Amino acid sequence: MTRIKPENPQSFRARLHTIIYEADTPAGKLFDVALLVIILISVLAVMLESVESVRRVYGYELQVVEWVITIFFTLEYIGRIIAVRKPWAYIFSFYGIIDFLATIPKYVGLLFPGSGVFLAVRAIRLLRIFRILKLVNFVGASNQLMIALRRSRVKIAVFLFSVIVLCIILGTIMYIIEGPSNGFTSIPTSVYWTIVTLTTVGFGDITPATPLGQFVSVVIMVLGYGIIAVPTGLVTAEFMKDKQVHLNTQACRNCGAAHHRDDAEFCYNCGARLKK
Amino acid sequence: MTRIKPENPQSFRARLHTIIYEADTPAGKLFDVALLVIILISVLAVMLESVESVRRVYGYELQVVEWVITIFFTLEYIGRIIAVRKPWAYIFSFYGIIDFLATIPKYVGLLFPGSGVFLAVRAIRLLRIFRILKLVNFVGASNQLMIALRRSRVKIAVFLFSVIVLCIILGTIMYIIEGPSNGFTSIPTSVYWTIVTLTTVGFGDITPATPLGQFVSVVIMVLGYGIIAVPTGLVTAEFMKDKQVHLNTQACRNCGAAHHRDDAEFCYNCGARLKK
Amino acid sequence: MTRIKPENPQSFRARLHTIIYEADTPAGKLFDVALLVIILISVLAVMLESVESVRRVYGYELQVVEWVITIFFTLEYIGRIIAVRKPWAYIFSFYGIIDFLATIPKYVGLLFPGSGVFLAVRAIRLLRIFRILKLVNFVGASNQLMIALRRSRVKIAVFLFSVIVLCIILGTIMYIIEGPSNGFTSIPTSVYWTIVTLTTVGFGDITPATPLGQFVSVVIMVLGYGIIAVPTGLVTAEFMKDKQVHLNTQACRNCGAAHHRDDAEFCYNCGARLKK
Amino acid sequence: MTRIKPENPQSFRARLHTIIYEADTPAGKLFDVALLVIILISVLAVMLESVESVRRVYGYELQVVEWVITIFFTLEYIGRIIAVRKPWAYIFSFYGIIDFLATIPKYVGLLFPGSGVFLAVRAIRLLRIFRILKLVNFVGASNQLMIALRRSRVKIAVFLFSVIVLCIILGTIMYIIEGPSNGFTSIPTSVYWTIVTLTTVGFGDITPATPLGQFVSVVIMVLGYGIIAVPTGLVTAEFMKDKQVHLNTQACRNCGAAHHRDDAEFCYNCGARLKK
Repeated sequence: MTRIKPENPQSFRARLHTIIYEADTPAGKLFDVALLVIILISVLAVMLESVESVRRVYGYELQVVEWVITIFFTLEYIGRIIAVRKPWAYIFSFYGIIDFLATIPKYVGLLFPGSGVFLAVRAIRLLRIFRILKLVNFVGASNQLMIALRRSRVKIAVFLFSVIVLCIILGTIMYIIEGPSNGFTSIPTSVYWTIVTLTTVGFGDITPATPLGQFVSVVIMVLGYGIIAVPTGLVTAEFMKDKQVHLNTQACRNCGAAHHRDDAEFCYNCGARLKK
Repeated sequence: MTRIKPENPQSFRARLHTIIYEADTPAGKLFDVALLVIILISVLAVMLESVESVRRVYGYELQVVEWVITIFFTLEYIGRIIAVRKPWAYIFSFYGIIDFLATIPKYVGLLFPGSGVFLAVRAIRLLRIFRILKLVNFVGASNQLMIALRRSRVKIAVFLFSVIVLCIILGTIMYIIEGPSNGFTSIPTSVYWTIVTLTTVGFGDITPATPLGQFVSVVIMVLGYGIIAVPTGLVTAEFMKDKQVHLNTQACRNCGAAHHRDDAEFCYNCGARLKK
Repeated sequence: MTRIKPENPQSFRARLHTIIYEADTPAGKLFDVALLVIILISVLAVMLESVESVRRVYGYELQVVEWVITIFFTLEYIGRIIAVRKPWAYIFSFYGIIDFLATIPKYVGLLFPGSGVFLAVRAIRLLRIFRILKLVNFVGASNQLMIALRRSRVKIAVFLFSVIVLCIILGTIMYIIEGPSNGFTSIPTSVYWTIVTLTTVGFGDITPATPLGQFVSVVIMVLGYGIIAVPTGLVTAEFMKDKQVHLNTQACRNCGAAHHRDDAEFCYNCGARLKK
Repeated sequence: MTRIKPENPQSFRARLHTIIYEADTPAGKLFDVALLVIILISVLAVMLESVESVRRVYGYELQVVEWVITIFFTLEYIGRIIAVRKPWAYIFSFYGIIDFLATIPKYVGLLFPGSGVFLAVRAIRLLRIFRILKLVNFVGASNQLMIALRRSRVKIAVFLFSVIVLCIILGTIMYIIEGPSNGFTSIPTSVYWTIVTLTTVGFGDITPATPLGQFVSVVIMVLGYGIIAVPTGLVTAEFMKDKQVHLNTQACRNCGAAHHRDDAEFCYNCGARLKK
């Protein structure tokens, strides 16, 4: 979306681009804030419409609001396609797909009634707030989170897979011990219960009744209470690594290498003396 | 509240200031401890009065206790205003507003019965304990906590906002899957349930009944169990940074080596004596 | 399983070994993936068979699937024994025992009906995925997890034992306070409830009814909420140590300074070239 | 309990001391293990006796077991007093008081029936296992845990106190919103519910019914989900500090100062060159 050759800044497309994509100009900022407010109203309207008592009284008004917003979203979507040089790049980008999915359900609802709930996908549009607030260091923080999570991705996958296998085995054991008469009606239900217990959620819709079942439950709980340390430890270690790497912020004047030790006097890459 | 010019230490205002604001003199210490005990009694009285069985038997006595405390708080509030040179600075300070809010409900209750429960705001006054215990390093610890939380504020906001958007989307999915017949009566209720599940609280007042709903629930639980690592990792990393920052910051004048121990007298690298 | 002397690569045993044990050749890779799919189908079949409504309709088909898989597992097990030079080493290895236990229940079920649920042990075979994915760094990550957990083993044991003793004592106190009339029917049940509460699972099948019982419950909850920090802190510290250990371990030959960056070529202290 | 002057090793008291207090001799080791087994049986007997169905069948046998153990404990307690030089030091030590409390309930039970449940205090005696296993590094690990917890004591206190004040205020708000008709019968009950929710236990015995109450609940849950990071971060930071401090294990040959930096060449305290 970075434009290589400057277009005539007074052309319609250029002005549209400024308003829709650039949050640094007053017009662009106004547009972004207005958009966020409209998305918020849209999400609230969908949520409220699902409440029986509200729908009975304000059903018609909510329908009107949703149609107005849908038309606005449609125009905005078309505007976005017009304003960029490579429309397909936008259409198949993450935000492009979300924008499309946020626009279409109301039209589909004309053909297939009941599909209106898919309007909830609009909630994802709220994530635009991060782009609007890019002036502050929100995006940086978000990226740092993402990087830390991505770096510990493999370990988290190994951990999660082991936990799932553990839950299948422990769930089956609970099914054998407790049986359908105590609410553990099948192995899938038992595995569901085991995950509910291991993650310390503990709904209490199914509870062990036999002493042996309670003993195994206790083992599951203590396990869950203990192994939560693993993802926490992984992510914390990642965050720490990040911290340690970014302490010395200067780059070598000779070779440009960065990330020196805090107490480095010479560049670790070329041996040149660093500025103190 | 630091006083620039010493007043006549025998004047009424000076003595009042000593008693109310200075916790280092015997009189001031006594006042602070007495105040804390009275606040505690006040909070207990409000709590006990809300218990039906207690109110029936001791209702009158509790009313008397509350009025006595209210009058004491009123006098203390007036005293605080008199004792300081810049009364408005006190009145609009955090503690000034809390003190006012802790005094007023009983009087308001004469006009609007039922507003007595707002006396609970007095609980905030218990935080005065930190000021009273300032002799010890309580305040320092509290500040350190505050600093760590403030520094990771932006990241926590990004994290929280993403989680809320996630909960809206997952809540809507659960509403579509389970529907009103299984207790997911509306999208707001579903979102509420999703947050209850994601935070691993798990009341169990609403539980999924369909296999697909249970599968999505499991995904929500595992997500909640996993992403708790993010705030924990953030705050831990902040605490750690704090630790590292407080190490000895001076560099050796002889060889320039840094990161000496806090109590180091000689450079660990060349043995030269460090500047104290 | 590393073979000292190369066998005739065209012999039956050598080819069998290549297929079953070596995931790097196309045939071996195909075998491993096929095996994983079959294990997955096997686990799903056992789980589905336990669901009443599914068993009624597809009971016969599931029986057929399970017998086919059992026969395949039998052949595979025999194949594994033939293909290795030291069969006993395989038979008594972790995977050998799991493979045996995953094969036998169906045969035992002919003699003792109802033992079919033990087929769930097959879920453990899913852990083979880690061996299949060894091309990537899954195994490394898994090992790192294991090492971190093993290193903090003693501390975790001390912690766990202390928590159990605490739960016995607090459980007995709750039994004394609440008594059988409020659901705390015996000390074992009370201890079970205490662990449910301390680990923040909170089923809600038993809840305190007396004010004193609720007060002790609150103490248990806050304890549980607080001491979760201990295993988390232990494991995180282990992970961190791990990170620190993997830093560049060499010292400068010129000035002896250590803790160089992993990719450092020059000493950060004196600028001398480091040995690669 | 370290003895200054060696007594005649063949005297009765010396031999008694060896058996009871010294876990390094075969006799002492045997005594310690036997004691642990008896304590375990004792705890199990008390737990089993509280189970209605077990008491009806084995009530008499359990009584006999408890009396035998009580007599053994009495003899052991007398033995311990005889074997040490300063009996009062033992009697008022932590273990001395626990030993006394573990012995007395059965005798008191003769006078006041029903006090038998206090036998549960014997569970604390199980902590003796740490002394018995002192050969291994259990005690060290336990001490390290204790030191880390003790060092972050003040911060944990500040944190806990703030959380309690928060819970009183939020509990009162929930009482105002939901009221007795929805199960929030009084402010103490509301505060209890708030702590149940904040610690993510979530029994589900009381749940918010109004939309506003559910909104405040969500705030409480997210708060609880987030601030668990604080104790975790504190303890982790303590554990880490511990790790960093203990890396260099050598002491200066000149002045005896320890805890040098890992890459220290000279003592930070006296400037003497350290042994590499």
